Amino acid sequence: MSKQEGITTKKDKDFSEWYTQIILKGGLADYSSVSGAIILKPRGYELWEKIKEEVDKRIKKLGVKNCYFPLLIPESLLSKEKEHIEGFFPEVAWVTEAGNSKLNERLAIRPTSETIMYDSYSKWIRSWRDLPLKFNQWNNVVRWEFKHPIPFLRTREFLWNEGHTVFATKKEAEAEKDQILKVYHEVLNDYMALPGIVGKKSKKEKFAGAEYTVSVEFYIPNGKAIQGPDFHHDGQRFSRAYDIKFLNKDGNEEYAWQNTWAITTRMIGVMIAMHSDDKGLIIPPKMLKNKVVIVPILFEDSKSKVIKEAKTIESKLKKYGAFVDLRDYKPGYKFNDWELKGIPIRIEIGPKDIQKKQVVLTRRDTNKKEIVKIKDIEKKTENVLEDIQNNLYKKSEKLLKNNLVKVKDLKEFKEAIKNKKLALAPFCNTIECEDIIKDKYNGVKSLNSPLDQKKGKNKCLFCRKEADSLFYFGKSY
Amino acid sequence: MSKQEGITTKKDKDFSEWYTQIILKGGLADYSSVSGAIILKPRGYELWEKIKEEVDKRIKKLGVKNCYFPLLIPESLLSKEKEHIEGFFPEVAWVTEAGNSKLNERLAIRPTSETIMYDSYSKWIRSWRDLPLKFNQWNNVVRWEFKHPIPFLRTREFLWNEGHTVFATKKEAEAEKDQILKVYHEVLNDYMALPGIVGKKSKKEKFAGAEYTVSVEFYIPNGKAIQGPDFHHDGQRFSRAYDIKFLNKDGNEEYAWQNTWAITTRMIGVMIAMHSDDKGLIIPPKMLKNKVVIVPILFEDSKSKVIKEAKTIESKLKKYGAFVDLRDYKPGYKFNDWELKGIPIRIEIGPKDIQKKQVVLTRRDTNKKEIVKIKDIEKKTENVLEDIQNNLYKKSEKLLKNNLVKVKDLKEFKEAIKNKKLALAPFCNTIECEDIIKDKYNGVKSLNSPLDQKKGKNKCLFCRKEADSLFYFGKSY
Repeated sequence: MSKQEGITTKKDKDFSEWYTQIILKGGLADYSSVSGAIILKPRGYELWEKIKEEVDKRIKKLGVKNCYFPLLIPESLLSKEKEHIEGFFPEVAWVTEAGNSKLNERLAIRPTSETIMYDSYSKWIRSWRDLPLKFNQWNNVVRWEFKHPIPFLRTREFLWNEGHTVFATKKEAEAEKDQILKVYHEVLNDYMALPGIVGKKSKKEKFAGAEYTVSVEFYIPNGKAIQGPDFHHDGQRFSRAYDIKFLNKDGNEEYAWQNTWAITTRMIGVMIAMHSDDKGLIIPPKMLKNKVVIVPILFEDSKSKVIKEAKTIESKLKKYGAFVDLRDYKPGYKFNDWELKGIPIRIEIGPKDIQKKQVVLTRRDTNKKEIVKIKDIEKKTENVLEDIQNNLYKKSEKLLKNNLVKVKDLKEFKEAIKNKKLALAPFCNTIECEDIIKDKYNGVKSLNSPLDQKKGKNKCLFCRKEADSLFYFGKSY
Repeated sequence: MSKQEGITTKKDKDFSEWYTQIILKGGLADYSSVSGAIILKPRGYELWEKIKEEVDKRIKKLGVKNCYFPLLIPESLLSKEKEHIEGFFPEVAWVTEAGNSKLNERLAIRPTSETIMYDSYSKWIRSWRDLPLKFNQWNNVVRWEFKHPIPFLRTREFLWNEGHTVFATKKEAEAEKDQILKVYHEVLNDYMALPGIVGKKSKKEKFAGAEYTVSVEFYIPNGKAIQGPDFHHDGQRFSRAYDIKFLNKDGNEEYAWQNTWAITTRMIGVMIAMHSDDKGLIIPPKMLKNKVVIVPILFEDSKSKVIKEAKTIESKLKKYGAFVDLRDYKPGYKFNDWELKGIPIRIEIGPKDIQKKQVVLTRRDTNKKEIVKIKDIEKKTENVLEDIQNNLYKKSEKLLKNNLVKVKDLKEFKEAIKNKKLALAPFCNTIECEDIIKDKYNGVKSLNSPLDQKKGKNKCLFCRKEADSLFYFGKSY
């Protein structure tokens, strides 16, 4: 760890290489001996802990309760809902042996927990009094997709929340959509500084087994879209497959209505890719405990005095998690190191600064330096942190807006795709048509169909049949 | 869920059946379709969240950082430390297929993460500057041991923390022992009301791969011992197997010194078994968010008045998570239900109570009722909760003390074991002798050797060779 090496490429020159370098050199994650899986190092895991904390307290306020279901799911149970299992089967990791014996039935490592949870729900739910039932898990899942992992963005194992809620009526179930999207929105916008596009997924891209999926999609600076958290309304599809019935107030038996919703560690990757620069990580201050590093400039004759003053400032800025870097390195090394690691504010203090009762404050997002009087340091720090948080959001918002194009015809569509923009186009929303689009335009996928659009009478840009609504299209992770 | 059924056996009549009933009917856990694994329902998971919260904030203060390593470990990696793999091999669940293909190498579901973590440690640790390295994971592990699970106490999957720390010297590594034992002690004693025996495990019972193990052992009211959290000093055994070396300040290469430590969901079972009674769960108040239930006694003509007063009390007792039970059930049903579920305090309020400006308060541990003036309710609730917490601890402490016997000879030893006591006896601490004991005394195991004992010159009670120290023995989970 003591060898210092900065980022050796540029974000707009070789995005993939740049992304891998900032993640690894910034100390967020590392590769492991398991192909396709990554290690979340403490600085990366801290970001997940923050996402968890903020989502968790909000869903608890909504009456959601956390629980834990087994990791391993018998094959027979996994196979009950046809569309669901068809969607997941190719990605399942199977346990077939334990100790020295072969198992009678293969056990899937959960790719998601609908099947095992709903098996229990069918036993637990008897009457309208048992509803709504709102359970959530924070756990790990395995989907055997990517041999070559991209840390956070594409990995065979990831961490997430999976909310699985059950209601007596479709209306109540669907009313949960706005509540959950608000929870995710607050964490994404107010903490991660990530604006996104909220909309319905296409028939082809919706969750396997859901009636419909609402997702939040993001635009990564390399020109690709990526899906963030999602909310699935499952209707009665799983309740029919897993026999989740209840006696309503009139004493009649009904199938229940269900939703599922999730946010994953992938969002850490989206956040890092969005904000960081050629010097390393840039992380929104509200995601970090340690928002300020103090680097003392030490000379033999004034060492103790400078350290003392640095410590005083540290304690003044305690609520921002300020810490003095007393490691046995040169200041220049420390500057680079904390830039690489994305500490939002760096404060330098040397003997001359003390004489002038000032420090040098550098903000990580713009790398701008300014001289600050020590007496003003608390107020200044508060303001600068707030400004960094807002600035990162605004930059991301601008990037997103600049890369959305409403297209009128196929020419404009092709032009938009060529320019790595997300194209908004009328679309029939059939699987057949989307398969053709993907084929014809080199992997272009529909992202989602914004929720707030006015429905007009349009023709599908691709097949000329009647359009369902406007959808965003783009290259996607 | 609306059918009410109490506990149909007694704790001292059929402990196993009683235990299963209180866990299931108290709503802490349920069986699943996966043999050997259980579901942690929200009321059970809440207890785990509390243990996590209290342990987590204490280890963070010690400078421990959380991280996350992959669930799946390649067989070749798992096999590097000989004693370690011999210990775990019989319990490993193996992934051999993914999607439609066979894997080239089997992947173990982590039974513990030494092997995969230390593989990375060997890459990350270069110099004394990188030490100490103190990482921890909160995750799930699978050990394919028990076909017939006992919820929390014996399950094929469980949740835990695994701390894995690395130091430059043996002295520093061993100094961590007291810190970690203090963390666990505080959570066990102050929150879970569980006194235990702290001591070194025998050579036979220590952790596979450790130099020595210190454990906390508990006495369950059915006469069995059970192991709680543990701390392992690994010496340089793993660092030699996994090549974890560092350059010391003199520029010489050395192998590092390591510890591991853990607490698991098993402790929930120990706590429940210890405190609960024939009416259902008894849970220490400090483990719960909702410590008080208010049951209004409703009649048509005074309904709104009583509900209003109940709500006023609820808001007065907000910091104890008080809640009014307005479900459409009779009061008697509600009383039984909350007794079963172990809410520490029940407050009844009816129209006559309102006239007299009083309520009826029942504490769950002793089931004693008392009349409390409404104006005194906050102070009274605080005192009763504190008293319940202390009372549960004292009862457990008494039970433990009453079941520890220091034995002088084999006759006393046999007598103690017959009477389901834990026998303290001088023991040579050899694997051969312990194998014979286990065989001869129907599964009796050594528990641990108390840390604070004065070493005398004793002969082993069993083989008459020189004793190592005094060890506790008993039947154990």
